[in-house]
Amino acid sequence: MEKVLSGMRPTGKLHIGHYFGALKNWVKLQEQYECFYFVADWHALTTSYENPEDINTFRKELILDWLSVGIDPEKSTLFVQSKNLYHAELFVLLSMITPVAWLERCPSYKEIKMEMKDRDLNNLGFLSYPLLQTVDIILYSAKYVPVGVDQIPHIEISREIVRRFHYLYDCEIFVEPEGLLTEVPKLLGTDGRKMSKSYGNTIMLSEDLKSVEKKVMTMITDTNRKRRSDPGNPDVCPVFDYHKVFSTEDEKQEIIFGCKNAKIGCVDCKKILLKHLFEFLTPIQEKRKEYEKIIGDIDDFIKDGQERANTIAGEIMEKVRRVMKI
Amino acid sequence: MEKVLSGMRPTGKLHIGHYFGALKNWVKLQEQYECFYFVADWHALTTSYENPEDINTFRKELILDWLSVGIDPEKSTLFVQSKNLYHAELFVLLSMITPVAWLERCPSYKEIKMEMKDRDLNNLGFLSYPLLQTVDIILYSAKYVPVGVDQIPHIEISREIVRRFHYLYDCEIFVEPEGLLTEVPKLLGTDGRKMSKSYGNTIMLSEDLKSVEKKVMTMITDTNRKRRSDPGNPDVCPVFDYHKVFSTEDEKQEIIFGCKNAKIGCVDCKKILLKHLFEFLTPIQEKRKEYEKIIGDIDDFIKDGQERANTIAGEIMEKVRRVMKI
Repeated sequence: MEKVLSGMRPTGKLHIGHYFGALKNWVKLQEQYECFYFVADWHALTTSYENPEDINTFRKELILDWLSVGIDPEKSTLFVQSKNLYHAELFVLLSMITPVAWLERCPSYKEIKMEMKDRDLNNLGFLSYPLLQTVDIILYSAKYVPVGVDQIPHIEISREIVRRFHYLYDCEIFVEPEGLLTEVPKLLGTDGRKMSKSYGNTIMLSEDLKSVEKKVMTMITDTNRKRRSDPGNPDVCPVFDYHKVFSTEDEKQEIIFGCKNAKIGCVDCKKILLKHLFEFLTPIQEKRKEYEKIIGDIDDFIKDGQERANTIAGEIMEKVRRVMKI
Repeated sequence: MEKVLSGMRPTGKLHIGHYFGALKNWVKLQEQYECFYFVADWHALTTSYENPEDINTFRKELILDWLSVGIDPEKSTLFVQSKNLYHAELFVLLSMITPVAWLERCPSYKEIKMEMKDRDLNNLGFLSYPLLQTVDIILYSAKYVPVGVDQIPHIEISREIVRRFHYLYDCEIFVEPEGLLTEVPKLLGTDGRKMSKSYGNTIMLSEDLKSVEKKVMTMITDTNRKRRSDPGNPDVCPVFDYHKVFSTEDEKQEIIFGCKNAKIGCVDCKKILLKHLFEFLTPIQEKRKEYEKIIGDIDDFIKDGQERANTIAGEIMEKVRRVMKI
């Protein structure tokens, strides 16, 4: 069975944007592929090295979030990057053959540097981040990596590094990975800005329903609809983006008609959304509680996955050392 | 007791230049300090990644050379870099806080690139080599690192990285290393060029004495002394550089006088050197043979040292992970 690999940085509890942008797909993929899902804790340090939040605690929260939406540790291999030192070993070895220019020309390198102007990202770790990502993928012979469009260049670098290695050492050890493009629905934060933990405008998967209600009821809508009697435009309303994801076809048609003709107010419109959000979040939160009850030490819980991951990586490393004569 | 650390790349058998430039000092240091001597096999790949000679075989040859000159595995901790994955782990973690500019401005970076124009050294591994070296040192809390003048900037980078780490994570985990300047006598190759394996002009510690004799007897001398009856100039004679290292004060005075006054010919002068070289090499080669007899698997032979090294490094890594909250 072909392998899929994906990871997330342990930087806080996940929100519904993470679900629709990645996790929903992860759950589906585990039915078709042999999946490896990992906690990318070293990656979290590439940009958060100055104030590492408690990556150790977030690791458990992250895995609990995965489990709560249906990631099945019996079907998928769950593991933590930093608990498998072969990632570091292969990183060191591949650094020998990776041109600095390949890393510098990676589009995200300049983009993220621009975005995070408040942080000093002129470090080796940030520069070499696409190599660490390559290692994560090829250590498990993953054929597919679910990605957004912006990550395609990273996969391209991974493929180039694999080809260069095979050429230099005249071998065929690794699988050249391919991006598996994931369609991500648009879900803005409750204040109309990009959904982001730092804006406090997210709806977290584990968020208290009272808090969800408060956030939704104060959500920004079409700013031109000042009074209940004004007609609105769902096309520019962030709440309607949520309806696109959560509501039925009939409901959406009703809302479009009602909004455009001032037959339905924003409060009622939000109540429909809220009902769906509750229906969506309740089973997730119940599942999370069940897991919280049974999981003490998270490393212990994913022990089988970690062992499996380390064994697979160890086998590849033996081949790598042999061709590099080390 | 304060710790000393040094390493060598396993790129072939050692020659007398290595002995007088480093090993002689290593043997002395093990009487005063707790010494860690390691096989820098990953470092060998930073410049030899395209054609890794059999680093695995050279590892054993290297350690045999060490033992033959008096490095004592009971006194010093001998180990192999690539067999301690904590080097790779700390390398990944410190890469997060190491500015690329610090590495780029390291003088040896540009120098070696100039020297090795035939090789493509625009790789991440070569750029980040001073960081890997830093890791090697600080994992063992080494206070002193024997270095030549040209390596002082490397030690300076190590100190800066340590200070930055301590500042960022508000801790005092590592020892700031200091260079221990080693005086290196001038010993050119037998053809008068720099002594280098690639020129075939070295006298190896394990070299057959017949071969040593042949090399010495054809060694270049003062090129202006064309005939036995011409007076010579010891100051420009590579053979006399060897006498400075091997011969007694009296012999040197006699040779200076004899050469300048054409009282001694080059053949006789070389015979004196040869006698000393034989006296120097014979016990080394005998010791080597003894070790060759008892050592089967080299990893097995240095097992205690490797375990000790890995344990010490593992203890430091626990502290590092704690302050980085990973």
